Amino acid sequence: MIFELTFLGTNSALPAHGRYPSAQVLNIQDQLFLIDCGEGTQSRMVEYEIRQSKISQIFISHLHGDHVFGLIGLLTSLSLIGRKQKIDLFGPAGIKEIIEVQLRYSQTKLAYPLEFHITNTETFQLIFENNTVEVYSIPLIHRIPTNGFLFKEKERPLKIISEKIEEYGLSIPQIKAAKKGQDVLLDDDRLLPNHLLTKASYTPRSYAYCSDTLYTETIIPYIQHVDLLYHESTFLKENQQRAIETMHSTAADAAKIALKGEVGMLLLGHYSSRHRDVNVFEKEAQTLFANSVAGREGMRVQVPYLEEMAKPQVVQ
Amino acid sequence: MIFELTFLGTNSALPAHGRYPSAQVLNIQDQLFLIDCGEGTQSRMVEYEIRQSKISQIFISHLHGDHVFGLIGLLTSLSLIGRKQKIDLFGPAGIKEIIEVQLRYSQTKLAYPLEFHITNTETFQLIFENNTVEVYSIPLIHRIPTNGFLFKEKERPLKIISEKIEEYGLSIPQIKAAKKGQDVLLDDDRLLPNHLLTKASYTPRSYAYCSDTLYTETIIPYIQHVDLLYHESTFLKENQQRAIETMHSTAADAAKIALKGEVGMLLLGHYSSRHRDVNVFEKEAQTLFANSVAGREGMRVQVPYLEEMAKPQVVQ
Repeated sequence: MIFELTFLGTNSALPAHGRYPSAQVLNIQDQLFLIDCGEGTQSRMVEYEIRQSKISQIFISHLHGDHVFGLIGLLTSLSLIGRKQKIDLFGPAGIKEIIEVQLRYSQTKLAYPLEFHITNTETFQLIFENNTVEVYSIPLIHRIPTNGFLFKEKERPLKIISEKIEEYGLSIPQIKAAKKGQDVLLDDDRLLPNHLLTKASYTPRSYAYCSDTLYTETIIPYIQHVDLLYHESTFLKENQQRAIETMHSTAADAAKIALKGEVGMLLLGHYSSRHRDVNVFEKEAQTLFANSVAGREGMRVQVPYLEEMAKPQVVQ
Repeated sequence: MIFELTFLGTNSALPAHGRYPSAQVLNIQDQLFLIDCGEGTQSRMVEYEIRQSKISQIFISHLHGDHVFGLIGLLTSLSLIGRKQKIDLFGPAGIKEIIEVQLRYSQTKLAYPLEFHITNTETFQLIFENNTVEVYSIPLIHRIPTNGFLFKEKERPLKIISEKIEEYGLSIPQIKAAKKGQDVLLDDDRLLPNHLLTKASYTPRSYAYCSDTLYTETIIPYIQHVDLLYHESTFLKENQQRAIETMHSTAADAAKIALKGEVGMLLLGHYSSRHRDVNVFEKEAQTLFANSVAGREGMRVQVPYLEEMAKPQVVQ
């Protein structure tokens, strides 16, 4: 069961050095979640063979253009290619007006329902859930209302140990009861404790997206122990003052958060155009937090289940 | 003195087959005019080495997304890279609200003055002029208010025949008078008729941009004898019915307009994504109007002065 992040854009402010503005796709068990949508996101999806039809939820962190200018193009293109299923769009106040004014003047009616969910950027709260995943908003500190997102897989049901079905001649209702964690009463009145029949399922995986933000330790409780943390690193610590003025972070800031949050892997992005080579961000972060990786255009990072004894890894 | 058109996007509706939505840059004597601005235009400009700093006027034909979704990104990027000079933005009613709502929610203040000029899409009229060029709106027929644009070089001053300066010992004031078309009185009271001293300057060049539109002969008086005509050809004549329903044109329609307008060269574009190969548009148009060329991404077309005995040509 896949858990994979794809970077569609890693630059801040504007396209430069072959890097595009912020956008990512998170694939959790073949459901795709789009996170931010800078200009050109729809073209990047085609380039990286992201199946747009599998996206039903879009999450926008804030309304700076480098995180949202590609949204109207994507939404109207989805309509043009015949989408019928609903899209849930999560974003701060203003996003509805921005989309609707453009649809109105172009006299465009989307072919699918678009449901707006206005996020409260000041609170950590559950904003979406389905059978597989829960998504929470993470309050961030930036020049305009901004929040990050925490994606958590839900606990999966207990797994039945297949040999036990035959050994005890379990019926379908008995198997279902065991999967729910119940003990099972056999026909001969023996009571089988649940732990004899089942094994723990996989440990849920998690991803936290934090962009854009000033360095703030207030987010640590929310991102504690996530498998993957994306934390913006617009600047290097040599530009710490500039980071503070613009309410952004440095690669060292991101690494400090990763260290304090005891996360599995730190991913960097939202690079200032003053740096052509993103290795400098990776190196700065690695001095504080070893498992730091600079996100790159089109990069994919997978998180295996903990039980598979493998660690998060860059796959391409 | 250059007169050159560059195609930045030739597809309709959405990006497909490596083609992008509508955008063109017209270079007249080193002044750059941007015409329409689909998503990704700013990235195409970088790719084709268009000097954004030389653009001071932007012309938007209508508010369908494939002609305008790249505008907000370009305008904010120009600000980020430090532009100070004014931009004149020409477009139909609604364009101001679309741009301003996005600036407002992102709390962005552009670093340069942006002046909106709302076009009347129903009349042929002068909408911009400077020392070099005049630009007129061309009413088109589409699903929402739409107009094309006619770019005309202004007449240039007469050229003095350099040998005559020495022959008659002309002073600076006498040369200036001759360039204005006046006869010149010499110190010995001889009156030299102007035609002895000057020769005609170059014939002004012209470009008409017509997208998007149903086939309409009402535009012929406005585009008569232009050196270059761009006329949209979303479809082929095998899809004539679809063209009429969506208020677009076929390649054959475009060629008929070129023929009746007796233009120098016809350029095609705004292709439907159903066609991977744009040669089919070129072939259909050429059966009616021989000098038809299918616009392609990054293609440049130059118009030399008539007096240089060369014809409009694709240069790359």
